[in-house]
Order: sequence, then structure tokens, then C-alpha cells
Amino acid sequence: MKILTLNCLSHSIKYHLFTWEGKSVLASGTVDRVGLGGSCLCQKIPGLAPYLVEIDNADHQGAIAALIAALTDPQHGIIADVGEISAVGHRVAHGGKEFRHSVQIDSHVLSVIRKQQHLAPLHCTPNIAGIEAAMVQLPNILHVAVFDTAFHSTMPEHAYLYPLPYEWHENYGVRRYGFHGPSHYYLSRRAAVLLNKSADSCNLITIHLDRGVSLCAIRNGLSIDTSMGMTPLGGAVMETRCGDIDPGIPAFIMQEMDLSPQEMEQVLNHKSGIYGITGQRLERQLFLQAVLAGDNRCKLALEMETYRIRKYIGAYLAVIGPLDGLVFSAGTGASEWLTREMTLHGLECFGIQFDRELNRTVQLEQGDVELTGEGSLLRTFVIPTSEERVIVDDVVAVADTYRNHLRYDF
Amino acid sequence: MKILTLNCLSHSIKYHLFTWEGKSVLASGTVDRVGLGGSCLCQKIPGLAPYLVEIDNADHQGAIAALIAALTDPQHGIIADVGEISAVGHRVAHGGKEFRHSVQIDSHVLSVIRKQQHLAPLHCTPNIAGIEAAMVQLPNILHVAVFDTAFHSTMPEHAYLYPLPYEWHENYGVRRYGFHGPSHYYLSRRAAVLLNKSADSCNLITIHLDRGVSLCAIRNGLSIDTSMGMTPLGGAVMETRCGDIDPGIPAFIMQEMDLSPQEMEQVLNHKSGIYGITGQRLERQLFLQAVLAGDNRCKLALEMETYRIRKYIGAYLAVIGPLDGLVFSAGTGASEWLTREMTLHGLECFGIQFDRELNRTVQLEQGDVELTGEGSLLRTFVIPTSEERVIVDDVVAVADTYRNHLRYDF
Repeated sequence: MKILTLNCLSHSIKYHLFTWEGKSVLASGTVDRVGLGGSCLCQKIPGLAPYLVEIDNADHQGAIAALIAALTDPQHGIIADVGEISAVGHRVAHGGKEFRHSVQIDSHVLSVIRKQQHLAPLHCTPNIAGIEAAMVQLPNILHVAVFDTAFHSTMPEHAYLYPLPYEWHENYGVRRYGFHGPSHYYLSRRAAVLLNKSADSCNLITIHLDRGVSLCAIRNGLSIDTSMGMTPLGGAVMETRCGDIDPGIPAFIMQEMDLSPQEMEQVLNHKSGIYGITGQRLERQLFLQAVLAGDNRCKLALEMETYRIRKYIGAYLAVIGPLDGLVFSAGTGASEWLTREMTLHGLECFGIQFDRELNRTVQLEQGDVELTGEGSLLRTFVIPTSEERVIVDDVVAVADTYRNHLRYDF
Repeated sequence: MKILTLNCLSHSIKYHLFTWEGKSVLASGTVDRVGLGGSCLCQKIPGLAPYLVEIDNADHQGAIAALIAALTDPQHGIIADVGEISAVGHRVAHGGKEFRHSVQIDSHVLSVIRKQQHLAPLHCTPNIAGIEAAMVQLPNILHVAVFDTAFHSTMPEHAYLYPLPYEWHENYGVRRYGFHGPSHYYLSRRAAVLLNKSADSCNLITIHLDRGVSLCAIRNGLSIDTSMGMTPLGGAVMETRCGDIDPGIPAFIMQEMDLSPQEMEQVLNHKSGIYGITGQRLERQLFLQAVLAGDNRCKLALEMETYRIRKYIGAYLAVIGPLDGLVFSAGTGASEWLTREMTLHGLECFGIQFDRELNRTVQLEQGDVELTGEGSLLRTFVIPTSEERVIVDDVVAVADTYRNHLRYDF
């Protein structure tokens, strides 16, 4: 059984082709500049050179046609015929109040997803375009929606509600939903395996550190709190998103600078975070080099980023109870020793000890690494995440007799 | 030496007359409905019956004239002549970037306070009206401004800056300032006395729980972080203020409900917090009765309030290091056993044990009470706060040779 996963963003598509039997990735690729003109597809197949294709004026429809063509290309592809694809798993950013686990997409489901897209228009609109395009090009097979928010649907009311007029929750769906669900789910299950415990007895804090950043408080294998909120703007300091701020600031600045709500939202989403503090749009690696070279503003930004993650770790410790482990993951979390070292600095007061030397040597390619230091009261891991793996498993579960989206170990 | 303290709010004034030599309150009082018509002054002097005076149409000028008349009233007053008042201490909500400690008010200082009032117009405008009125009615004596923000001026840059465009900090003063400074300062010094340690070696978390709520992370006697931000809207759940929310929510709701930024600010300040969750504007005592009677929405509100305070305690533990003590204070914190019990519930994972039975019996009138339980790794106190005491001490310090606003023990 071969399963295609699609992660459709505004101007790019990421895809993976998996074999369920072999539990491995047959091919992966990206199509960039979707809808912007001058798109390029780049496909990687283990053992082959990368395959690059230029595409004129691809929208989501054209991009999906191109990736199917690339997968079935006689010379550069991996399958002989599109009919070999049995199912498609679509990453959908927002499940709103309706979807608490993955579902087969039919016209009703699609209409509900459409109805909820105002909750995260930047993310859901391209998700929907991707689903529509894929259902045209791959008809008569199973399409499954896997929601970023689903893993967090186990949060209790006192954690997901905001201290805002209650009717905003009832009428407009205002509540904490959380994101990066497949990532936090994968990490929780993988950590359980490394801890040699059953997933439903593990207490964990998982830290997904990438351009977007979120932390998850996991008690007995279930999400009980997470740092992102109704939107992916809240929580930790991110590449260009502000995370938590005083809610009095936007109105103050809108008045001082005469900005509209839309302009304010743009700044909070695209010109804040690390970018806002440093004033520079640096690739993360160049940013880290600047920190190590002693650039004051970059040092300040990394201090702010790690200080706030540290505060989240303390906050989640206070509500989870005795913890089994702490997990760093995703692009930044799995590859940056300095970010991990600065985050962990000072957490000795909680009995968290880590191997400083080992931490400095960890490379992304190493896979899972345990950083736990001598005498530590809990264990610390670096685990590269695999959201695609969760999507594939959920597709298989839906194809089979889906009962519980929390049932896998990895 | 007799010192008058004034806390001028939009529609009320609180005042205290202190004797420095006796370190005690000679008289205290309030004038309410200032500027609204039908004002009433209520003055209390130890050993006398409360003295009530009705005043027609009092503005801040009229209210201060009335309280001077009450203090010097031959029958109901405590001083023979206004000349006995040597100095006035004014509580000023916002010191902005300029004021890091208390200062004598002259025309320059007043103009700087005026220039900064846009940072907290709701609070600073009546503060300024009060200063102007008092300087007219009590000329030729010392007037001192004591700022809510001053105690927090020791916060490091990574704690007070927001992950927002850096130029907002430079051009508009956008940063965390924090509030309730005199209260957190008093609590830190009083806790040091109870701990029998020097204040500058104490690590504490102080919790000011009233209609407004703020927590302070204190390392070596200095504020290193606090939950309120640039405005008093951020941080914990309050009576009508929301505290921390996803910064993506206001723009979303303004669009859905067609609200202006001003209308949104009104809701976040006056219709959120406990009021927003319960949908009822209950006096705190009735709210607690409803919780104990099992009202679901009130229970939810108290769970949310205490859950978020608990998260702040964990967050501050993560950045302070080994803690000496935890302090509950102010109206709610000093008098509500249930709020304290629910806040402390689950903090055993940090080695915090408290005496549950004792906690249930604590009354505000008892003064300082230690709640520390057997085997606790740190000590827990209930300490009624005294912001006026800090104001008086700072006035004396400014009258004398003021060097350091952090020098007092209580």
C-alpha cells in the first residue's frame, strides 16, 4: 500500500510517498513558488540524484499534476502508474471545534473545513486548494484530513478557554486549539519507546522548535496544554511571529502609528519575533553565527527566545506533575546545540541535568539522542520529528477500522 | 513628621495620614464618585467612629479640599492645622522609561509625567489631576512621586523587551514595565524579615491578588520579571481584565463583530477576566460563594484563574533558581483560602508543602501567617501588603538624602 502525504501551504507544497509495508519513504519533494510564477519542483528518491523540474505558472492544481508526473516519470520517478497510490493524507492546519481526530474527506467534511477556514485563513485556504486539486487528479481513492489541532483536543476546559467573554467561545469558536499536533504526537510516542514505558503513562514536555515554535504539556500521553493558541501567533518567540505579548500593545501602537487592524496583524505575524528584535531577516544559520560572533541584538534575540521557552518548561512542570522527559525537536530543536544549551541553563533547580559536551556534538542525521546528565531526575532527548509518519499511520487507520488516533508507537 | 499619601484614581481618592516617628496610620479615608456628582468622603481614625461627609460635585480639587477639611476638622479630625502635614506622597501608576525610583515633584518632573501619560492614560490622568490639586492646596511642602513601575526597573533586557519591532521600543517606549511595585517591594522586604535573611539574598515569588493581579519574580531582592506588561492588562486572569491571550484574537474578533480598536480595548479591560468567563459582575465574595455552591461557570473561572497563577509560579521558578519563599497578598491573596489552596494544589512536585488546615483558617486581620507544611523545600506566607508604608518611607528618603529606593526592611 502506497500513501501520498500532502502539506499544501500558500506558495509551496511538500509531499512524501510512503510504503506502508516497508514503513519507509519512497520519494519526497517540494514544489515552490506555487501561484507566483516560475515554480520549481525538486524530488528526492533514495539512491538517485535530485530531480528538478521547472514549471510555468503552477497553481495548486498544476503543482499536484507536476508532482504526480514526477512520481510516475519513467526515468526519475518511483512508481509506474498513478494507480499505485492507494490513498492521500492531507495535513490540515485547523480542525476547529468539529474535528478531534483524522477523518475521510467527503463533500460534507470538505464543506465543514471550508466553513472553519476563517479561524486560520493563511493556512486553511491553501490546505483546501490542495485537497480540491488532489481529489480531481486522484479520484476514487481515499483522501484523509489530518488536523494539526486534533492531538490537543484532550486539553481540559480550564486550559483551552480564554478569560474573554464566554459568548465569543460559543459564537465564534474562540479558544486555544494548538498546532503542530502530529509532531507532538509523534514525539510523545517515540519518547515513550525510548523511555521503555507505555505511552499512556508518560509525562512529557515536547518542544517543537522551527520557524514556528510550540511546546506541549503531555500527561499520561495526552496533550493537556500547549503554547500556541487559537491561532499559530501565540506562545513562544518565533522567526517572524511575536508569540505572547501584552494584549494592550496592539491598540496602543495602532493609535500611535495610525495602523489598521490588518496592518497590525501583518506586523505581528511577519515582522516580529527574532526578525523584530534583530531588525534583520537572517537565515537561522547566519543568525546563530552572528550570536556566536557577539552581535548584541542577535544575542538578545536568542536570550529572549530561550528565556521564554524556559519559562514555558517551568509553567508546564507546574501543571503536569512529576515528569519523565523533555524532548527537543524539529529544525532548530534537533540541530542547534546553543539553543538547547541556553534553554536548559538554570533548569538544574528542577533536577534537570544534561550532558553539555554531548549536546554540543549532536547532529540532525544522528536520529534520536539522549542528553540526560548524571544524577538527573528526568531524561532529556533530541528526537527528529516525523509529522508525515503520523499522517500515514492515520490514513491507514482510517482505511482500516479507525477507532483511536492515539494508538501508535513509533 | 506627618506625611499624607494620595492614591488618585479616575473616580476615587484613597488617602492615609502617617506619623513617621510613630510608624503608624493616624487616619485613612476614601472619597468616591469623584467627578461623577454625589461624592462621599469616609474617614477612619483609630478609636473614633467613621466620619462621613457628603460632597456635591467634587472634582479632584474639591475632593482633596474635602479630605484636608476632614483631617483638620476640630471634632472628627486628627490634626489641628494643615501646616502639620510635612510632605505628600503620590502614587503614580507609570514611570515610563524616565523614572527608576521615587522623585521630588517639580515642574520638570510633572511635565515628564504628563508626557508619558499616554502609556497608561486611564491611570496617569487622574494621578496628574491629583498632583496638581494637591500642590495648589498644600503649597510649599515636599511632594514626592512614587511609581508603580520603579521596583521593576531592575528587570534584565531579555525579560522586559517584547519580540516586536525593536524600533517600537526606541520610539514609543514599548516594553514590559510592570505594576504594583510598592506592593511587591513591601512583600519582598517583609518576607526577608520573616525568613530572617537579608533582603538582598532572598529569592521569592510574590503574588499580589486583588481586582488587578500580578506576580513578581524576585532574585536577590530585586525584581527580575513580572506578569503585568507595558499596561496593566497583561498577565494573570483579573476581575475584568483578560491577562494573557493569543495576540491573534483581537483582530479576529474585531473583524467578526465589526468592533473598533477602542471598543476591543474596552472589552479586554472591562468585560473579560472573571466577569467574561462567568458572564456576571459579582462581588468577589458572592463569586466565591457561587463556586462553593457548585456553580459551573464560576468554578471554571476560579480554576482558570488559579491554573494560570500556578503556571506563572512554575515559569518564575525556572528563571529565579532556588527559591526561599512564596508570598500571597492583597485583598484576594490575603483573605481567600480557596484561591490559595487551588493555586498551591499540584505544586508538591516542586517540593512545596503547605498546611492545608491552617490555610483554611487564615483571616486578613491576623497579619502575617506562615503556611509552610512539613518537609517543604521552601516557605509559604500570607502577608497583607502595605503600599502606603512604602510610599511614606520613600517620601522620607527623598526628604533626607535619597540614594536607594530598595533600602528598607519592614
